[in-house]
Parts: sequence; C-alpha cells; structure tokens
Amino acid sequence: MSDHDKLPTRDESDSMGTIAVPVDCYWGAQTARSLRFFAIGHDRMPEELIRAFGILKKAAAIVNQDLGKLPNEQAKWLVQAADEVIAGKLDAHFPLSVWQTGSGTQTNMNSNEVISNRAIELAGGEMGSKTPVHPNDHVNMSQSSNDTFPTAMHIAAVEMLTKQLLPMVRKLRDALAAKGQEFQNIIKIGRTHLMDAVPLSLGQEFSGYVAQLDYSIKRIEACLPELYELALGGTAVGTGLNTHPEFADRAATKIAELTGQPFVTAPNKFAALAGHDAIVAASGALKALAAALMKIANDMRWMGSGPRCGLGELGLPANEPGSSIMPGKVNPTQCEAMTMLCVQVMGNDSAIGFAGSQGNFELNVFKPVMIHNLLHSIRLLADGCSSFTDHMVVGIQPNREQIQEYLENSLMLVTALNPHIGYDHAAKVAYKAFKESTTLKAACVELGLLTAEEFEQFVRPAAMLNP
Amino acid sequence: MSDHDKLPTRDESDSMGTIAVPVDCYWGAQTARSLRFFAIGHDRMPEELIRAFGILKKAAAIVNQDLGKLPNEQAKWLVQAADEVIAGKLDAHFPLSVWQTGSGTQTNMNSNEVISNRAIELAGGEMGSKTPVHPNDHVNMSQSSNDTFPTAMHIAAVEMLTKQLLPMVRKLRDALAAKGQEFQNIIKIGRTHLMDAVPLSLGQEFSGYVAQLDYSIKRIEACLPELYELALGGTAVGTGLNTHPEFADRAATKIAELTGQPFVTAPNKFAALAGHDAIVAASGALKALAAALMKIANDMRWMGSGPRCGLGELGLPANEPGSSIMPGKVNPTQCEAMTMLCVQVMGNDSAIGFAGSQGNFELNVFKPVMIHNLLHSIRLLADGCSSFTDHMVVGIQPNREQIQEYLENSLMLVTALNPHIGYDHAAKVAYKAFKESTTLKAACVELGLLTAEEFEQFVRPAAMLNP
Amino acid sequence: MSDHDKLPTRDESDSMGTIAVPVDCYWGAQTARSLRFFAIGHDRMPEELIRAFGILKKAAAIVNQDLGKLPNEQAKWLVQAADEVIAGKLDAHFPLSVWQTGSGTQTNMNSNEVISNRAIELAGGEMGSKTPVHPNDHVNMSQSSNDTFPTAMHIAAVEMLTKQLLPMVRKLRDALAAKGQEFQNIIKIGRTHLMDAVPLSLGQEFSGYVAQLDYSIKRIEACLPELYELALGGTAVGTGLNTHPEFADRAATKIAELTGQPFVTAPNKFAALAGHDAIVAASGALKALAAALMKIANDMRWMGSGPRCGLGELGLPANEPGSSIMPGKVNPTQCEAMTMLCVQVMGNDSAIGFAGSQGNFELNVFKPVMIHNLLHSIRLLADGCSSFTDHMVVGIQPNREQIQEYLENSLMLVTALNPHIGYDHAAKVAYKAFKESTTLKAACVELGLLTAEEFEQFVRPAAMLNP
Amino acid sequence: MSDHDKLPTRDESDSMGTIAVPVDCYWGAQTARSLRFFAIGHDRMPEELIRAFGILKKAAAIVNQDLGKLPNEQAKWLVQAADEVIAGKLDAHFPLSVWQTGSGTQTNMNSNEVISNRAIELAGGEMGSKTPVHPNDHVNMSQSSNDTFPTAMHIAAVEMLTKQLLPMVRKLRDALAAKGQEFQNIIKIGRTHLMDAVPLSLGQEFSGYVAQLDYSIKRIEACLPELYELALGGTAVGTGLNTHPEFADRAATKIAELTGQPFVTAPNKFAALAGHDAIVAASGALKALAAALMKIANDMRWMGSGPRCGLGELGLPANEPGSSIMPGKVNPTQCEAMTMLCVQVMGNDSAIGFAGSQGNFELNVFKPVMIHNLLHSIRLLADGCSSFTDHMVVGIQPNREQIQEYLENSLMLVTALNPHIGYDHAAKVAYKAFKESTTLKAACVELGLLTAEEFEQFVRPAAMLNP
Repeated sequence: MSDHDKLPTRDESDSMGTIAVPVDCYWGAQTARSLRFFAIGHDRMPEELIRAFGILKKAAAIVNQDLGKLPNEQAKWLVQAADEVIAGKLDAHFPLSVWQTGSGTQTNMNSNEVISNRAIELAGGEMGSKTPVHPNDHVNMSQSSNDTFPTAMHIAAVEMLTKQLLPMVRKLRDALAAKGQEFQNIIKIGRTHLMDAVPLSLGQEFSGYVAQLDYSIKRIEACLPELYELALGGTAVGTGLNTHPEFADRAATKIAELTGQPFVTAPNKFAALAGHDAIVAASGALKALAAALMKIANDMRWMGSGPRCGLGELGLPANEPGSSIMPGKVNPTQCEAMTMLCVQVMGNDSAIGFAGSQGNFELNVFKPVMIHNLLHSIRLLADGCSSFTDHMVVGIQPNREQIQEYLENSLMLVTALNPHIGYDHAAKVAYKAFKESTTLKAACVELGLLTAEEFEQFVRPAAMLNP
Repeated sequence: MSDHDKLPTRDESDSMGTIAVPVDCYWGAQTARSLRFFAIGHDRMPEELIRAFGILKKAAAIVNQDLGKLPNEQAKWLVQAADEVIAGKLDAHFPLSVWQTGSGTQTNMNSNEVISNRAIELAGGEMGSKTPVHPNDHVNMSQSSNDTFPTAMHIAAVEMLTKQLLPMVRKLRDALAAKGQEFQNIIKIGRTHLMDAVPLSLGQEFSGYVAQLDYSIKRIEACLPELYELALGGTAVGTGLNTHPEFADRAATKIAELTGQPFVTAPNKFAALAGHDAIVAASGALKALAAALMKIANDMRWMGSGPRCGLGELGLPANEPGSSIMPGKVNPTQCEAMTMLCVQVMGNDSAIGFAGSQGNFELNVFKPVMIHNLLHSIRLLADGCSSFTDHMVVGIQPNREQIQEYLENSLMLVTALNPHIGYDHAAKVAYKAFKESTTLKAACVELGLLTAEEFEQFVRPAAMLNP
Repeated sequence: MSDHDKLPTRDESDSMGTIAVPVDCYWGAQTARSLRFFAIGHDRMPEELIRAFGILKKAAAIVNQDLGKLPNEQAKWLVQAADEVIAGKLDAHFPLSVWQTGSGTQTNMNSNEVISNRAIELAGGEMGSKTPVHPNDHVNMSQSSNDTFPTAMHIAAVEMLTKQLLPMVRKLRDALAAKGQEFQNIIKIGRTHLMDAVPLSLGQEFSGYVAQLDYSIKRIEACLPELYELALGGTAVGTGLNTHPEFADRAATKIAELTGQPFVTAPNKFAALAGHDAIVAASGALKALAAALMKIANDMRWMGSGPRCGLGELGLPANEPGSSIMPGKVNPTQCEAMTMLCVQVMGNDSAIGFAGSQGNFELNVFKPVMIHNLLHSIRLLADGCSSFTDHMVVGIQPNREQIQEYLENSLMLVTALNPHIGYDHAAKVAYKAFKESTTLKAACVELGLLTAEEFEQFVRPAAMLNP
Repeated sequence: MSDHDKLPTRDESDSMGTIAVPVDCYWGAQTARSLRFFAIGHDRMPEELIRAFGILKKAAAIVNQDLGKLPNEQAKWLVQAADEVIAGKLDAHFPLSVWQTGSGTQTNMNSNEVISNRAIELAGGEMGSKTPVHPNDHVNMSQSSNDTFPTAMHIAAVEMLTKQLLPMVRKLRDALAAKGQEFQNIIKIGRTHLMDAVPLSLGQEFSGYVAQLDYSIKRIEACLPELYELALGGTAVGTGLNTHPEFADRAATKIAELTGQPFVTAPNKFAALAGHDAIVAASGALKALAAALMKIANDMRWMGSGPRCGLGELGLPANEPGSSIMPGKVNPTQCEAMTMLCVQVMGNDSAIGFAGSQGNFELNVFKPVMIHNLLHSIRLLADGCSSFTDHMVVGIQPNREQIQEYLENSLMLVTALNPHIGYDHAAKVAYKAFKESTTLKAACVELGLLTAEEFEQFVRPAAMLNP
C-alpha cells in the first residue's frame, strides 16, 4: 500500500474529513481509510464479488430511475461506470482486504466511490467532488452495506456455482461415465477393508463414482433456490427504511434480468442480513462433493500405484517427471492436487460454519470471511475437477493382465459357494487354500465338499457381478 | 466387560473356533470376540441403530421367505425375535463399542447372533447350536455387513430426523412465531455491529428467527430423499452377489411398509457402500441449523443480559439459582446449553466430513464413527430445541420500559433524515448530538438544517419499520 | 429421568423453593431442577470430573479448617463424604447432563449437595436439612462454580493424561520400537506418492513411527505445566472475593498432595475463569498425536492388504472373522478402530477450539462441552493405543518373500546410478526398463551406459540405506 | 498463464522432452509443465517459502563445495543466484500453484531451474543448456524434493513465527498491559453468563488478557524446537541415499548460520518426511492464540457497544465512518477484522490436522496445503495483532461515568454479605431488591437482617477486589 503514498494525490472526503488519494485511482476517502487501517494479510476481496457489486449497483440505479428517485442524467453515467466494473475493467481499483469490517461496508463504499468517481469523470466533472454522482446519495441510493454485501455474496455464489462449478463437475462425471462404459467388461477383484473381496467390473466401480457425482450435482442445485433470494431492499436492519416500497422486488427482478439467473427478493430481510445459513448449507454441499472427490482420487492413485510394487491395476497419465532425485519416477500428481484441495474445502467449511453462527441481533459481521471461503472452495473444486478430468481421467488405461491375475488368485471367490455348501464350510475352504498356498478348487475338492466340476460350475467371476 | 467373565457360560463358535459367552446373554462368538478386542471408550452403538437392524433383519426374512429362500418355520421365529429387537427388549444384548471394525461387521453379527439365539430359544432349541436359525445362513441371508450397516444408518437417520428432530424444530419455530406475533407492536432499537442502529419491531426480530428455522426445516427435509435410498441388496461389494434379483427392491419396500417411511432401494449400490456423502450432506444441514440456533440463543441471552448492567430488553425464565456464590443470580442457562450443543454439532460435522472422505475401493470403513456422530447431533438438536422452547422461549417477557428508553435515546434515528437533508448533513447532526450529549432534534435545529416541526415530522420510529 | 418421579421422595430446598427428590438419592434441590430442565441427550458428566470434584471439595474443606473457617466437626464429615466421591462410591448420585449451564454450576451444586447430604447422614442428621453440613456455606465455602469447575477440569485432564494416556502411548511406542528392532535387517522397497521408490529397512520405517510417538509424548508433557495451574481461589470473577488470602495457594498445595501431581495456584485467576486456552492447546497436542496414529494405522493396513491382491508385506493378527458374507476373510479391524477414533479426536478438537473462543468478560460458559470433548479424546486415544498394541502391533509378522520380490523388481534402484551416470541418463534407463518390461541392468547395458559389472557394483540395495 | 504463450520462447528440456518457455523467464521445463497441468485456483506458493528454498539451496551448495562434491565455479554462480532468490529479486519467476503435486516437487524443481538458469546467465552461458550449472545434478545435489520441501516448510515457519508473529503478539500484549496499568483503579461490575456479577477493576480485566497472551507466547515458543529440526539430508525416503555422511549435519548448521536460527538436522528423517505432526502442533498453538484473541476482541466490542443502547463502558477509536446509510455511525471494525481472522485460523487448523494425518509410507503428500495454511494463519495473526494494537487498543478510553453507574446499581454486591448472613438470606435480599426495584441496602434493612450501618460496612466494592 505504501506505493500509493508516493504518487501525486487529490483530496477525497467523507464524514470524517479529507484524505489524500492517488490521482489515478477512482476510489475515495473511505477506501483510502480502509487501506490505512486494514493492512492485514494478502487476501483481496474476490473479483467475482466485485463484479456482483457492479451488477447490483447497476440494477439499483435503473430501478431508482424507474421509480423516479434517481435523475436520468445521474443514472446514465452511473450505469455506464457500473458496466465497467462488471466487465472487470476497474478491478485494479478494488484493493481492499478481506480482513476489514465484518459487514463489508468498506467494499460497498469502495464500489460506491469508484462508480461515483468514474461516473463523474465520464460526465466531465471533477473526481472527489461527488458531483454530479454522489457515492452515498446516488450510487448507494436505497441501499445499505448490510443488504448490498449479502446480495453480492449471493450473486457471486450463484454465478460461480452455476457457471464454473457445475459445468466442471458434469465434465468430470461424463468423463468417468465414458471410462466406465469403456471398462464395463473388465472383471476385477473387489476390495473391502483394503482386503481381497468378491469381484465386480471396473465399469461398475466407475459407475459408483458417477453416482456420487450425480448426487453431488443434485445437492449443489438444491442449494441454489435459497441463494437466489436477495437481501437488497432490507437496507440497514431489514426493515427497508429509505427505500421505495417496490424497490426490493424490482431490484431483484432487474438483477435476474442482468444475470439470467432467477433471483428474487428474500421474503424475510431480517434473516437475510443477520443469518447466512444458506452459505453454511452451500458449503456443506461442497464438503460432501469434496468427500466424494477425495474418495475417487484416492482410489485412482491406489489402483495406479506401482509400477511394480503396488496394485498396478491402472496406468495413469505421466504428465511430468515425478522426482528430482529418482529418475523415471512418475507420480499421481493430479490425484494429489485434488486430495489437497478437498482438504482445503473441508477447512474452509469449518470456518464458514463457525462464522455463520456468530451473528448478533440485526447483522452477522463475518460476511467477508464467509464469502472468501465459499468462493475459494468453489474455485478450487471447479478448477480441480477440470484439471483432474483433462490431465488424469481421460488418460486412464487399465492394466488388463494385472487385473486378471488378481482375479484368478483371489480367495474371496469362495463366497459364491455360500448358497451351496454354507458359510461355515466355505470358510474352511478359504482358510485351507490360504494356509497351504493352494487354489480354492484344490482345497474344496480335497475337503470333499464339491467335485472339481461342481466347483467350476459354481465359481464363475462373470456370474458374480449381479444378484 | 470383565463382569461377564464371572458369570456361568456356554460355548459359542464361529469360523475361528469356540469362545465362552455368559449363559444369560443372547449374543454369540463374534460379539464375544469384539468385546475382548475392542475395549475402547464408553460409546456404545446407538439404540436407534440397533432398532434399525431389527427392522431390516425382519424385512429381509420376510422377503426371503416370500422368495422361497427361507423356510416358513425359520422365518416365523426369526421375525418374532426381530420384533423384540425393534421393541427395544433386547437392548442389553447389544454391548458393542462404536470403536470396532469400520464396516460395523461386528454389530451386524451381534444382530445376527442375538436374533438367532432368541429365535432358537423361542423354537425350543439350544442357544449356540445355530439350529434351527443360523446367524449367517438365515438371519444374514442375502446380506453382508457392507450393505446392512449402511441400510441401518439410513433407517436410523430418517427415523430420528423425521420423528424427533423435525417435530422439535417445528415446535420451537411455532413458539418463536407466537412470541413474534405477541411482540409485533413493540418498537425497539436495532443493533448492527453491536452498535445502535435504526429501529424495528421486536416482532420483526423474531420473524427473522422463524425464517431461519423455516429454511432449516426445508434443508433437513431436502436431505431425506437421499437417505430413503437403501444399500440392502448390494451385499459385499455392491454387485448383489448371493441375492435373489428381486431381493433389493422387495426388501426396501418391506422396510418402507414397516416404518411408514418412503424407503427405496439405492439405484447404485457401489456408491451406497463406498461413499456416505448423503450422511455428510445431512450433517451439513444440521450444521446450518446449529448456526441458526446459536445466533438465536446468543441474541436472547444478550437481550436478557443484566438485570441492571446489561441490555435488559428481555426477561428470561428463572428456572434455577444461577450461582453457588452470588445469591439471587439468575443465568440464561437454556441459552448456554443450546450454544454448547451447537458447538458440538459443528465438531461432529468435522468428524463426519473427514470420515466420509476416507472410503477406499468398494467400502468406506468409517461407518460407525459417521453414524455415531450424526445421531448424536440429531439427538442433541432435537432435545435442545424442545428444552429451549419449554424452558426458555415460552417464558420470555419483554421489558417494555427499557426497550422504549433505548428507542428514544438512539442517535441512529437520524437515518430517517437522509432523504431530506442528505447523508453528509445527517452525519453532522449525529456527531454533534453525540459529542454534546444532546438530542438529535436539538442538534438538527441548532445546525439550522430543519425546524423542530420538520424534524418531528420526518423522524418517527413507527414510520421506520417498512420501506 | 422420569423413573425418579415414581419413587418415594423427600423435600429439598434452595433459594427458589422446595422440590421433591427420591429418598435414596443424595442430591438436592438444584440437581433436581437441573434434571427437570436439562433433559438433553445421553451425555453425562464424565466420572473423572466427578472424582476431581471430590478431590477439590476435600482439599477446600481441609484448608478452610486449617484457616479456622470451617469447624472441625463439619470438616470431618465433609471429608469423609468427599472421600466416597473420590472412591467412585457415589457415582450414581451424579446424574446430570453435559448440556446444562455453561459454567457447570449445576454439577458443582450436585457435588455440594451430595457431599452435604452424605455428610449429614454420616453425622446422623436429616438429609435435606442442610445441618450440620450446608451445601453452600460449608461444602462450597470459599468457592464458586466459576473457579471450582475449571479446577476440576484441570485435575481430571492431568490425571487422565498422565495416568491413562501417556502410559498407553509409551506402551505402543515401545512395542513399535521392539518390532523395529526385530525388523532392522529386512530391506524393503520404499514408497513415495504410493509409487515405488528407493529402498529402506522395515526397521527404519518403524523407527519413523517411534519418532512420531516420541514427539507426541513430549508435546503432551509440554501441555501439563499450564494444566497444573488451578483456578481455585478466584471464586466468582477471579478476584478471590470471600476467600482467605492464603486459601488459593494452600488449596492448590493440598490438591497436589492428594493427587501426587505438582498442582499450583494459577497466577492470574481472571484468565483462569474466562479463557480455557490451555484446554484448546492440550487438544491441539492430542490432535497431533491423532495425526501420527492415523498415519501409522493406515500404513499398517496398507502393508497388510491382500492376502493375494494387495501389497501383502505384513501379516496382521487375525482376531475375528472379517465378514458376515465372505467366508475366511480377515480384516485390519484394529487399524479401523484406530483411524475412526483419530477422526473423532479431530472433530472433538474442532468443538474445543470453537468453544474456547466464546468466553465473555469474566467467564467462559462453554466449560462442560470443552471438558467433555477433551476427556473423550484422551479416553479414546488411551484405550485405542492399548488395544492397537495388544491386538495388532505385537502380532505383526513380515512376509519376507513378498518384501524381497518387490525389492528385486523395483525400477527405483536406478537412483543409485545418479552419481555415476547423472539424473538424465538414469531416467532413460528407468523408462526403457519400464517400457520394455525388462530389468534395469539389461536396459543400462543395452544403452551402453555401464557394463553389467559396473551396474552390479553400483546398485546394491543394502548399500542404499544410509548416506 | 495463457499470457506466457504469446511471448517469444526458448526450449527447455527435462526427462520427458522439450517444452517452450518465455525467454525472459528463468524457469525451465518442469515449471512449464506444472503451469500447464495445474491451472487450479489463485493461490501461489508463499514468498516466505520461496525465500526458504533460496536459503537451503545456498546452504546445500556451500556444504557440497566444502565436501568436495560441487566444483568451486559452479558453487560460486549457484550461491550468487540463490542470494537473489533470498533477496526476493526473482519472486516473479516462481509462478506455481499451491495445488500441484503433494510433495512440492514442482516448486523444488522451480527453485532448481531458476537458480540454474540465473547461475548460467551470470556465468555467461546459455539458459536451458544446463551448463555449467545443472538444475538436478548441481542445484539439487544431495537433495530430493522429499527432504527439501519440508526443510523449507520449517525454515519459513520458524522465520515467520519468530520475526513476524511473536513480535506482534508481544506488541499487543504490552499495549494491553499498559492499558491495564492505566485502568487499575477503575472499579467496574463483573459479568458472568453475561449477567451482573461481583466487581473487579478494569485493570484486572485487562490483566486477564495479558495473561492469555503470555501463555500464547510461551506455547508458540514451545513449538519452535521441533521446527528447528530439518529434514534435509534424508533425500528421497529418509535414508540419505546419495548424500555425503556429513551432509545433513553440515547443511543444517549452515542454514542456522545463514538465518541466525538454531536449526539442527532432524534425528529421524523417516518421520521428518512422512509425518508433519510438528506443523499440526504449531497450528494447534496458533488456534489457542486465536481463541484468546477472539475472546479479547469480543469483550472489547461488547464493552464498547452503544453509544446509547449498549454497554457503553469503553470508547473505541473511530477510524472510519461505519455505515453507508446510517450517518455518524462508528463500528468496532478492528474487532471484526480480528474475530474474522481468528475464525479463519480455526478453519486453517482443521485443514492442517486433516492433511497431517494423510501420509503414506515414506511420504506425506499434503505438504503444500499444510504450509499454505500455516503461513496464512501466521500472517493473519501477526498483521491482525499489529493492526488491533495500533488502531484499537492504544486508543481505548474508559467511560468512567457509565462504569460507575453500573457498579452502584448492581445487585450482585450482595455476595459480600454471604460470610455475614449466609447464602440463603443474601439471596432473599437480592430477590427483594430486584422485584421491588429498590436498593440492596433498603431490602436488607427492611428484612431486618442488618442495620444500614452494618450494610455499608460490609458492602464496599473497593474491598471486593481481592481475597
């Protein structure tokens, strides 16, 4: 931040007085104060949230204009400036930290100030003059930080969930489904408790992954309706003080129009400002997805373990050298990136739940930490699913020889004998074969339980894949 | 456990040999081994899970009988014994720890053994003889621990969510709604950032709590469909080996019939055994409820703080003496029990998410720790909501004098002047009044911004509760 | 609780009036009220905490007697009753839930009432009469719940950490060290990223586990000094109101004498009542132990995986049949119990950290949830380490053939060539051997990089175990 | 990353072939591959970790030179390039994501490549030629990612803990101690359960905060010895393959010399690569600090609540306008930033504990997520303590009038009567005064328990601050 101090400055003012701001920055006094008072960490407010602020400021301006509260001239410049925020052209002018006031007031004011100054500039006015477009009276008209920030949270979350995460989860799901189709006739040994169990097909195994992702997608979709509900119109405490009676509804409709998402105004604004249970619940759905992805990635790296001293059932793509000391080593790096980010999503979920519980009276002041973690989780899961698909799943190759060898050796095929000789006898066969390092058939015949022909008739892996 | 050693015993056997069991206990060899090998902690498998095992064993027996696999005689005794498990009559015979094998195999075998021995007893046979009702071949027919345990998890979760938790959340919701109705005309100061803000009614504040619980109820209900899906029929690895092709569907239908819940067979059994994302997601919904409850309980104890040196807006029921040293002290103890249990639910959720991610191949072997924590959370939330309603919410009394005094003193009523004199002038009024310990009206008039009449016209709390 | 209502009762009273109590119960009015108002969950206050209350009540009585505040007669009966609490004889008279008031006041009063009534009985008086031993004026003399409960927390934590957990961690550590010694000459393939890596000895691998536990022991020991500091003497808010100036010091000394632990009085009582960072930190040390144990247990079950389709390097004890459907299956059940309880310890740690942050002013009212979780974690880890040692570690058998076969096949032995032919050439050798399914030696010779003799001289696993 | 594609490039190669790299970037083939394969999220490897890599690469080079393994010429250029990494001049050349391979191999290779190419440039060679300074054979000499990455983790953690966090915690501690000194004679009402309790001085209250931070400092210091132990010299699996027998010790000594920190070589390298319990434990200590800070920040914002409808005992600095809609509002924003970041530290701790438990065999491959979260927590706590001190604590002003008014009104002064009239009588006095809205003295006299003179003699707040 200290760099800004060396630049030529102009004076900006707020209700506490004037403060110098670099001339080439659109922000105003309150942003400048926040930079001074919150030099904490390197986490900036996420770009997706800033974009959401642009959308809501534009929507509010149009609605206020329609309701006759905002003059056309001001509305025109304001909307034009807001469009630049939406387009990401002014990202550099949103320098504030996540670790600021817990209502995100300073980022709301940052939005007001940048849009005000850019609108003034477009109108040919003097930046910092608050004329003709005032940051509070015009840009923030009918709004409070307390309703705008949670509105921006919901807009950003919905946009990222629907446009980034869900498509990437579906992409991974489809890649797994295609592989499962490809692998449907490869019969392999099942493993439970990490121990040899009865067989299934590799395609069936992959169908489980697909099912886990199908549920994950449904759960994330089920979170959306709550997130479609916007706090805007509640202003400071949820009563809607200083708004036109039609503002809340119209603003939500306008945001829906601008985004193509079915946003509506929240029916109860008190809950919308003071509780963020919808964010907690959305994070819970992301955590369930992370649990599924961790299981999938772990399975793959274990099945790909080796090449000679592991399970070796799958060949995974060799994207890069695996070791700076062991030549020729190739590692399941995409799985590792995925499992690491799943762990992060779980940590983020802990923070979100805790923060969500800490509201008091008319406001939860843990908003920035909540949205920071939620968008972080979404970003990681979306990018992670995409990377895992492209650089891992599509390149998986089954090692048919190894798979077949395991299948033939497994003692757990004995389970097929339960209906014929009973559990207790079958157990004796398995123990004998294990102890004497022989085959099940040999043990079974030797114990006089079945003839070789009967054994072969009863124990056929291909017949063990269905009821 | 050592107590059992002193009692007269009979011999029970399994595939590993014989082991002594107290004569008056129905359990068999594998339960006895588990008692010996898992003397860890004091957490027993939850009763609701045992009851669920009774239900599924009964359903499986009836279906196997219908399908011609289980003889009528065996089915008759087996069902009668299972009914006793369902009725809770045999709870004392389920002594196993949560900290056993991760598939819950030993609790499945505990069920098989108890039902087998009790059925044998009913049939006039000899306990431990496995005749006429064998624990594996009959009680466990067409089943594996790997599909029965997750089935019991879902049955127990659904039963507790629908019969215990949801009714108690609704009871609390209704009590809060009734209080909100009662308080709808009590205007009070709002608080944001813990600081004085613009007014709202006490009824509006309570409406926010009601809204939070309404969403919580919907979220929990939204978890149910996934939990209605049962793993039964997947047997060891999800393929359904050793089951009749109609078993899975019929068993789920029978369980639905026995419980009155719309259970169905899980469409993908591989996911049903190896992933428990539905449990993770359900816990996420409970966490979101906990976040809401923590906020509500915190608000109430803060509003009830005092009696003379706190906020003092609410009188809370005085259920018990509050201090062993300070005579006459009364504390918000129901709020404290509630906030503590909300913290526990969040901790449980951490454990559940972690455990849910740790499946490998065809099985997740963290099943007992997952269901232990989930049912614990449900139990605490259900009992907590009930206690909080009965001993806290219904007895809340507003302290109207104190509420009125705050309202009259607050500087934030100045917000109503924004549309009339602008944000910057209004700020000056507030600062002046604060600095000089005077009223807003006096400050406003002295600054020459409004006449006293205008001020009175613009600043009316009752007019500030809506847009 | 409802059972108590049917029994013959006597009247007990407190500052709120009289209430009926079962005649054969020693508790009084406040315990009775708590049973009525906190019917939440099944979690009772841990026995170790009740025992700690016995110790502190005894110590306080003796010190008050020594200071001339408590008459000899009262002290005599009081101490005798407290001794019965310490001995666990009165456990049945401590029925209260964890989910009560957040200061644990009701459990402190439960202690006061039980000791008072039992002392009265011993003195030949009438239970409920508060004569000659009054629950507040005598048993609670110089005390408040606010300083007794955290004192009991520390006593219970120290006793369990030193007498239960540390000995069991040491036992496991020693068993692993003995196995490591036994395995020191077994050379095996190393695995990083689950992939084949350069060799080490099985004994070296176990030495890593031993080192992890050695650090864990040190970390837990490092938590003790803070826990030795007792809040007793702070009374209601930390000022020590209503205590003799020497009470705090003398009481801590007496508790040290009674327990043989170096307890001292906390130098700052305000922190001792309002913050429980020492508990949070102790839980952090337990979490680090859980992380170590989870790694160890996971390694063992993976190395024991098979018997024919897994890594198969270790044979683990077969304690019980592993499957209700797959005959002859044996599972790593001790590892599963261990990994499950490690997950629980992590969940408990989440709850403890959250609770520890929620103090306000002179008191943290999340005391019961904190100690409940801490003692739960200690219990699970202690029992888990013991069970894991006895039923798992001591029975581990290396599968030397399998270990040797992996060693000979591994391509990563190529790393030994780095100093001789450079990383890039060595990588070519490994790729060639892998691609052509040949040996490293053949590939190396064929590439003209080394002669067969040179290769054999440079690549010797036994020479690769040290710098 | 896509921007890089448009720039003029040179060819770089690794064991997998050649790949284009922008000509003005020092990184090589493996970094380029990582950029392509790990486009996940926006989290870059922390600068402090990169600096630590510079230190260890320099130390390794000097030691290898001393041991006669690295020629002087190579060592000279290598050290010069490493010095530039240490100075932060090459930060732009470390573009890799946290979400890469779990051993951090790619960041180790990024270091090797940047130092190699910069050294080549300094030597007048051709970048990408690997001559005269080879990334693996020279820069990575005697090293593996598996020992360098955890070494860099420990160096970075120690540097940040000792140079950033501890000084800032001490600064806050000293500021609180100074305020406590200033406030030592201000007697105020205590609050337990948020309810009025017996008095203490404001200075005593602050002494509790100071004590909490003193313990926090000690706990963090207690984590350092384990972090001083460095993995370097273990190479790939902990055996030290391909290192000189003196390398490990000498390298640690050299790093100690370069940093001024007492680093030593880890006595057991197997644990140092495969477990990161020391990181888990350090995070636990940070969590305990976060719990303390959250309590302190919460206390302050509650005591500063108002100005007219809250507790109003403290005046907090007014750093910025608090509301975009409520003019003149000032909020406890520093407290909010602090409580938010404490929540983040707890979430980070969840991720760290989980990740720390997930090692397998010779390696934990969750290293990047662990150090990312640990350094994030340290950074937030350090900056947060500094900001909270400068912009909050030093400006606190007690509101003496309000404090005095509460003190005089409180009913809990009745506690001073316990030793004189007993708990039960004292309770009656308090109830009567509360019910009749009168003073304790009036109630006491009216009940005939004491004379007014006696009451005044016994109830003196100033006499209630000590035993």
